[in-house]
Amino acid sequence: MNGADRLCDVLLANGIDVCFANPGTSEMHFVAALDRKPEMRCVLGLFEGVVTAAADGYARMADKPAATLLHLGPGLANGLANLHNARRARTPMVNIVGDHATYHLPLDAPLTSDIESLARPMSHWVGRVDGPEDVASKAGEAIVQAVTKPGASTLILPADAAWGEAASAPVTPVALPPPPRVPAERMREASAALRSGGKIALILGGKAMRADTLDLAGKIAARTGAALFSERAARSQRGAGRVAVRPVPYNVDLAVETFREFGTAICIGGRPPVAFFAYPGKPGRILLDRCAVIELAGPEHDLHAVLAHLCDEVGAHRATARVEAQTARNLAAPKGALDPVAISAALARALPEGAIICEESITSAGNLAALAPTMAPHDHLPLTGGSIGIGIPLSVGAAVAAPGRKVVTLQADGSGMYTVQGLWTQAREKLDVLTIVFSNRGYSILKGEMRNVGVNEFGRNARRMLEIDDPALDWCSLARGMGVEAARAETADEFVRLLDAGLARTGPFLIEAMV
Amino acid sequence: MNGADRLCDVLLANGIDVCFANPGTSEMHFVAALDRKPEMRCVLGLFEGVVTAAADGYARMADKPAATLLHLGPGLANGLANLHNARRARTPMVNIVGDHATYHLPLDAPLTSDIESLARPMSHWVGRVDGPEDVASKAGEAIVQAVTKPGASTLILPADAAWGEAASAPVTPVALPPPPRVPAERMREASAALRSGGKIALILGGKAMRADTLDLAGKIAARTGAALFSERAARSQRGAGRVAVRPVPYNVDLAVETFREFGTAICIGGRPPVAFFAYPGKPGRILLDRCAVIELAGPEHDLHAVLAHLCDEVGAHRATARVEAQTARNLAAPKGALDPVAISAALARALPEGAIICEESITSAGNLAALAPTMAPHDHLPLTGGSIGIGIPLSVGAAVAAPGRKVVTLQADGSGMYTVQGLWTQAREKLDVLTIVFSNRGYSILKGEMRNVGVNEFGRNARRMLEIDDPALDWCSLARGMGVEAARAETADEFVRLLDAGLARTGPFLIEAMV
Repeated sequence: MNGADRLCDVLLANGIDVCFANPGTSEMHFVAALDRKPEMRCVLGLFEGVVTAAADGYARMADKPAATLLHLGPGLANGLANLHNARRARTPMVNIVGDHATYHLPLDAPLTSDIESLARPMSHWVGRVDGPEDVASKAGEAIVQAVTKPGASTLILPADAAWGEAASAPVTPVALPPPPRVPAERMREASAALRSGGKIALILGGKAMRADTLDLAGKIAARTGAALFSERAARSQRGAGRVAVRPVPYNVDLAVETFREFGTAICIGGRPPVAFFAYPGKPGRILLDRCAVIELAGPEHDLHAVLAHLCDEVGAHRATARVEAQTARNLAAPKGALDPVAISAALARALPEGAIICEESITSAGNLAALAPTMAPHDHLPLTGGSIGIGIPLSVGAAVAAPGRKVVTLQADGSGMYTVQGLWTQAREKLDVLTIVFSNRGYSILKGEMRNVGVNEFGRNARRMLEIDDPALDWCSLARGMGVEAARAETADEFVRLLDAGLARTGPFLIEAMV
Repeated sequence: MNGADRLCDVLLANGIDVCFANPGTSEMHFVAALDRKPEMRCVLGLFEGVVTAAADGYARMADKPAATLLHLGPGLANGLANLHNARRARTPMVNIVGDHATYHLPLDAPLTSDIESLARPMSHWVGRVDGPEDVASKAGEAIVQAVTKPGASTLILPADAAWGEAASAPVTPVALPPPPRVPAERMREASAALRSGGKIALILGGKAMRADTLDLAGKIAARTGAALFSERAARSQRGAGRVAVRPVPYNVDLAVETFREFGTAICIGGRPPVAFFAYPGKPGRILLDRCAVIELAGPEHDLHAVLAHLCDEVGAHRATARVEAQTARNLAAPKGALDPVAISAALARALPEGAIICEESITSAGNLAALAPTMAPHDHLPLTGGSIGIGIPLSVGAAVAAPGRKVVTLQADGSGMYTVQGLWTQAREKLDVLTIVFSNRGYSILKGEMRNVGVNEFGRNARRMLEIDDPALDWCSLARGMGVEAARAETADEFVRLLDAGLARTGPFLIEAMV
């Protein structure tokens, strides 16, 4: 067997049986090897930003990594923006990036580039296969690193390592070390703070946002009065019957005001909040200096165990976490003009149980976050790293990972254009994804940010960079061009009707919401 | 004034008056500064791969750099693949990449990343502005480096350097050093080789491919019997009345065979050819070991002066370069089935004088290269670095640089999807671009490469990665979705009719050629 076959075997032996791909010539031996493994599901993206975001969405839902297959430096480069988001989501992922044969690199052929330099900023681990005999160990290391960090491993596979002969040896799953233990001293510190009667904020992230672990956080909150917060967690299980967590506001002043009352912040899977951007004269850290910060546990820890231990320490195991009933279904259907508030109300009442919301609504979220605790239980996958163009392809991966569950993508139009090619993969794979495009025809968030820097009257150049209304995008035409059925809603009534139709059917559908 | 205003002044003082942009929050002060400079033309791309390729196309035609404006690491990352192509084209370009305020970086806010690590592989120069007072000198250095290397300069502009107060000082154009001189010894070596009577290949690139310089090469060829070659030169002036240059074949065996007869290769703006990819058992260098290589001059030299000097040395100034007459216009219009050969014949006869061809036809080029010397004189801008997704946005930049000239984009469908968003900018800017999409619904080049690695029967996984026919892309629908009129040609007759219509009108139009 050759190195490429061996790599497939290692991936499959470790349960990595989905490969999101856009290959090139230097990966042809790997493609041939994948072709010999029908148990590997290969999903093509027509652009690498689709590939990496799909792998992100997949792992968030499957709780295991997918592989990606990318073509040399430029193929990796095209996937980096969504790899950045995956890095911030702490998503496990194994990127296979082909490279020229080792002896070909010194010739500086046209597609040669410094892949390591490109990969490092957005990867948690980067490695290069030395030769066919090195494939199994490097691939194993890539998987261990991806799962335990957790994060993206990028493994560079030179063509001659792929095509060279590798000894045929049995492949066994890699041994995964247990998660590290949180130092007892830090645990005691957190417990003492929670028992102190002070105002405590628990900042949750990662797997602390899963329903069963959130329930523990909810018990602690009920017992101690601690407040629960989260910020762009990769996957939040939310809705009726689940413990609600407040998002950290994006607006700096509002965020600072929100946290002003707290004397201690305990981070469990989350990080101390910071301003998304710097603004002249505004703070970067959201927590005041007088707020003590205990960074208790990160994504590498067993967060369920950490919260269970804290429950014990504060005597909360018999407390009852506060949750809402499923009242959103009783909301009146919105009427009249279509705007983000009407859309979020319509969605809140109609969302089916077990749905997955992939959200990149940017300024068009309406009041969905406020309604969420009263909606049917669902999973929420947001934009984690601020790099726009995640929504459409994230839903591809989520749908591949969770067949039988409805995926709803809330997609701003400006960011949607970044990876619009993902609609084609939805059609190709017949994925059950309903995409709602908020067509406001501008980079609305930037118009707000221009006002933040003191510019209220936009001249021609500013308008030419912040408005995308001339010409207007026709999202229905774009979707149909990629094999996805689509319809436009101009009023709330039309939207409700299309939403009901879109949720009732199976397979991809797009609603262009004129907001 | 603030640092952002100062940056605009430096760009404008140096004749950089076009900025291809997709800004974000950290660049709002720069956007506000651009808004105060109506003499700067700001062109929005809906994705950064459009932005960088447009800047590439612009500089190839304008012979001066454009600026790009990119948002942080992810915005740069999205532009890297086409920056890779620009790097291989040796295109001068000044990328302005915003970054967080310097004091905000240690907080590791969500959009923070190592911009330098991302920029270096695809840039010829990378710099970071230290503060508002440093803007003018760093911007000046970026411009000098871009013009003299030539290549892409990437200048990182922290938000606080943009918004901080900079002393208002007069801005003067940067002093550009004269091009370096080719060592006399190397000149003598090349002259001696040309006078030796041996079989000589001149490998031309860069500005040696402009009509007036090519004429000198043609005289040398006429006088000495040297053969003229070029490989993916950024801009070739070709057609009737101009000296024709043979392309280096992509196929390795064919390329090696082509050069077997030569005892010496003299590189003037070009490089010794190497195989695009490595293949088991095939050579990487195209030239045989016994072929002497003289790397006479690179893109940093004055190639016209170098060829003029060689002309003198070999007594070729009175020789007559061999050129073809404009016979392609007499070709019969193709009939019947539509295929790449029919398309290239139709284009060869109809192309107007002074047109600009942006070519990313990959496997669908037909016999356009063979017909080129008999076509109306035109400029040819190819894919230079092998990173797909350049054609549509390259034409954006070429059209902005050369108003009044018809731009024809020859675009393969698989690679066209990479930066399909560029069609919107064509519509927004009302650019005179005719796009011909070769709709073969597969990555045809990869199917050939799979056969090269010995796989002739494709299984499900290979087909799922190499075919893009399910669902079929509807390019007319995609184009209309972005405001570009479009029509489909199923037969050669239909294509001829649409081509004539597309060339007769002004403004963007797309023909989906079903090949």
